Amino acid sequence: MGRRTQAPPISWLMKLPLDHPSLMTGRMALQYGTTVGDPQLRRLTTDRLWQLDSSGGTRSTASLIDRRRASTVRARVGPSPRESKEIYSAERAVITSGSQQLLYMLTECLCDPGDVVLVEDPTYFVYLSIVQSHGLLCRGVRLAGDGIDLAHLEQTLKLLQRSGELQRVKMLFLVSYYQNPTGITTSFVKKVEALKMLKQFERAAGHPIYLLEDAAYRELRFAGDDVPSALAANGAGERVIYAGTYSKPFATGARVGFGILPEPLLDAVVRVKANHDFGTSNLLQQLLSRALASCRYEKHLSALRHRYARKAVAMVKAMREHFPADVLWEEPRGGLYVWARLPGSVKSGLKSKLFQSALRHGVLYVPGELCYADDPTRRKPNHEMRISFGSATEADIRAGIARLGATLRELL
Amino acid sequence: MGRRTQAPPISWLMKLPLDHPSLMTGRMALQYGTTVGDPQLRRLTTDRLWQLDSSGGTRSTASLIDRRRASTVRARVGPSPRESKEIYSAERAVITSGSQQLLYMLTECLCDPGDVVLVEDPTYFVYLSIVQSHGLLCRGVRLAGDGIDLAHLEQTLKLLQRSGELQRVKMLFLVSYYQNPTGITTSFVKKVEALKMLKQFERAAGHPIYLLEDAAYRELRFAGDDVPSALAANGAGERVIYAGTYSKPFATGARVGFGILPEPLLDAVVRVKANHDFGTSNLLQQLLSRALASCRYEKHLSALRHRYARKAVAMVKAMREHFPADVLWEEPRGGLYVWARLPGSVKSGLKSKLFQSALRHGVLYVPGELCYADDPTRRKPNHEMRISFGSATEADIRAGIARLGATLRELL
Repeated sequence: MGRRTQAPPISWLMKLPLDHPSLMTGRMALQYGTTVGDPQLRRLTTDRLWQLDSSGGTRSTASLIDRRRASTVRARVGPSPRESKEIYSAERAVITSGSQQLLYMLTECLCDPGDVVLVEDPTYFVYLSIVQSHGLLCRGVRLAGDGIDLAHLEQTLKLLQRSGELQRVKMLFLVSYYQNPTGITTSFVKKVEALKMLKQFERAAGHPIYLLEDAAYRELRFAGDDVPSALAANGAGERVIYAGTYSKPFATGARVGFGILPEPLLDAVVRVKANHDFGTSNLLQQLLSRALASCRYEKHLSALRHRYARKAVAMVKAMREHFPADVLWEEPRGGLYVWARLPGSVKSGLKSKLFQSALRHGVLYVPGELCYADDPTRRKPNHEMRISFGSATEADIRAGIARLGATLRELL
Repeated sequence: MGRRTQAPPISWLMKLPLDHPSLMTGRMALQYGTTVGDPQLRRLTTDRLWQLDSSGGTRSTASLIDRRRASTVRARVGPSPRESKEIYSAERAVITSGSQQLLYMLTECLCDPGDVVLVEDPTYFVYLSIVQSHGLLCRGVRLAGDGIDLAHLEQTLKLLQRSGELQRVKMLFLVSYYQNPTGITTSFVKKVEALKMLKQFERAAGHPIYLLEDAAYRELRFAGDDVPSALAANGAGERVIYAGTYSKPFATGARVGFGILPEPLLDAVVRVKANHDFGTSNLLQQLLSRALASCRYEKHLSALRHRYARKAVAMVKAMREHFPADVLWEEPRGGLYVWARLPGSVKSGLKSKLFQSALRHGVLYVPGELCYADDPTRRKPNHEMRISFGSATEADIRAGIARLGATLRELL
C-alpha cells in the first residue's frame, strides 16, 4: 500500500467501540460514527447488492435473469454461500461522497507515484485525471463487446513482467456496466477470468493486484439482464473492490456513493476519509436510508430507467436519420452514453474541426481521445465521440443530433 | 505549488462559459457547474463574510463591536474599500464538504512531501493528521492569550532560514477563533502582523508563504466581540486563504464548508475537487442557500449560541466545584472546548492513568499531546486536556466533570 496508509494520530479514536458510554465524546465520536458511514445505510446497501448478485436483477424490472442459469454460473465460478455472506457484510462497506470519492481515496491508499494501473482502453476520463494527479502510469487493455480482451490483458501483464514493471502494478480498473464511455458491459465470466489472471501474476509482482470494479451505471439498465458483480467470483473477498453510487440511479444532487472493500483497504480508506472530510453528510445518508427502506428508491429508479430508455431511443433514431452511414455505434442497453466511431478521415479531438464546429452550433460531446490513457505502447485513437442522452430533453436530443449530423456530413 | 496542480485532462471543460448554449452537456456540464459550488451560495457566503468583517459582528448578537473602533483599526491596517470589495467577491469562493475538505485539498495543492507548515502549538489535531499523510513537516509557534507569539514566529522563521529550510515553508495555519483545542482567539492586529512577517521572509523563501485562516468556530461566539478575519488585512488578497463552515453554526449533518482563496490557488483547488468528488452535494447547497436567504440560518445560529453558552457555563461551574485547585483553565467565550492544564506531575496522554481511568468511567477527552505537532525543536507537552461541551447535555456535562474531577483528585 502507498504512503498515505500510515496511521494518523486520530486512529486511536477508531479503536473505541461505537457504543462506548462516553459522556463527553462531543463532536468527535459523532464524527467517528459517520466517517465509515451510517450503519443502516451500509446494511441496506450490502443487502441490496447481495440480492442483485444472487438474482441477477432487481424485482422491479421486467427482464429478470433466468434464475437457474444464474445459479449454474455461480455454481461453476462463484463462491460458496458461506464466503458470499461474508463478502456482502455491512462491515465491509464505506459510504462516500459519490463513488468518485472512493476511486480517489482508494487510489491514494493503494498507489505510490510511479505505480501502474491497468485500465480499459478507453476508460472513464475523470479516473485518468485521478491517476495523473497521483503521478501514476497506465496501461490500456483493449475492449471487446463483452468487456476486456483477456488475451490482451495477459499479454500486457507478461510485457510488464518482462520489463520489470510488474512490481509496480497495483490494480485493474473496470467500469463494468454500460461503461463510460463505450456503453459496454463486462460479462461475469470475464470478471472471473480477469481476477484469476491477476492472481496468477501476484507471485511475480510480490503483492496483491486488486480488481477495482466501478459499477456506477449498473442500475441504469433498460434492456437485457443484470450481470453479477465481481464480488460473486471465487476469491473476491480479498481482491475485489466494488464502487457503487446512489447519485446516478437516485439523485445526482445527493452525492452518496459506497464501496465494498477487503478489510485492510477499508481501514486505510476510512483513515484517509477522516482526513478528507471525516464522513459524508449524515443528512444525505439518512435520506437515502429512508428512500431505500421505504421502496421509494425502487419506484424512482424504475421511472428513471424508463425515461433514459426513451431518451436513448430518441438519440439512436436521430443518429440513424442524420449521421452519415459510415459512422458506427452500438445501441445502448443502459447507462447514459452512445459511443460513435467515425471513419479514419475525420478527427474528433478537442482541436478538430468537428469538435470546434459542434461547439459553435451549441453541441458538446466528449472527444474519444480524452478517454484514452497515456499509454506508450500505442497511439491514442482520435476518431470517436461520447454523446450523452442523460440530461437533455428528447426534443433537444433530436435537435442536437441533427446539428451534429449536418457538421459530420460537411466534413465527410 | 505541489505536483497535484498540473492540469488534468478535464481542465478544458472549465474553460467553457457557464452559460454555454450546449444542448448535450449532460451530466458533465452539470458537474462542472457544481465543482466550484452554487453561485447563489457563494455570493451569500462572501456577502455575509464582508458584513462580518465590516461590522465586526452579526446583527443578531447582543454584543456588537463598537463600530467606530472597528473602522479605526481598519483605517490603520485594513485594505482600501476597493481592494476589499474584490477580496470578498463570490468569484473567489469555493464550496466544499465541510471546511475540512478545503484544508485537505489546499494542503494537497500547495505542498510537496518534505515541505514545512507552521502551526499553532498546540493546534487542530486532525490537521496534523492531514499534514502527516502528505509527508510534511511542522514547526509549532507558541500561543499567547490573543493568538500566536509573534516573536516566536519570527524566531522560528529565522531559524528555518539559517538551516536552509525556509524554501520549504509554504504556509502558516491558524485556527483563529475559539481555537481547537485551546479556545484562544487571535486578535486582528496579530493577523496583520503575522501576514507582514510572512511577506518579509518571502524573498528568502523564493515563493509565497500563505496564511491559512481556519475560522470554523467563528460564529459560535457567546461572549465578547467578533474580530475581523485576516481577509481584512492589507495584502490579504494574494496571501490569505479563509476556510469557513456551515456545519458547526448550522448543522453538522449537512457537511457544507467554503473557502475564499487567491485565484491561482482557487483554480488548483477546483481542479483537485474535480478529482475528489466533482462538487459538494447540490441538495445541501440549495438547503444552505435558502436557510441563509430566509434568515432561518441566523435564527438557528442565535439559538445554538445560547445553548452552547449555557453548556459552557455548566461545564466551568462543575469544573470549579470538582477539579483540584491546581488545574487551570480559561472560561470559553465561544467554540466548543475548555482547555485544562494539569500540574506537571499528572500526565494526560493516551497511555496515562488519567486517560485510562477516565475512559473506564465513561469520560472521553482529547489528550493534549495529540494536539502538538512532531516538532524536533521541543518536547511534546503531556499535561493538558481538551474537554468538549458540544454534544453532551448539561446534566451529562455535570456528571462527567464530577467523575473526571474524582479521578484527578485520586491522582493528585
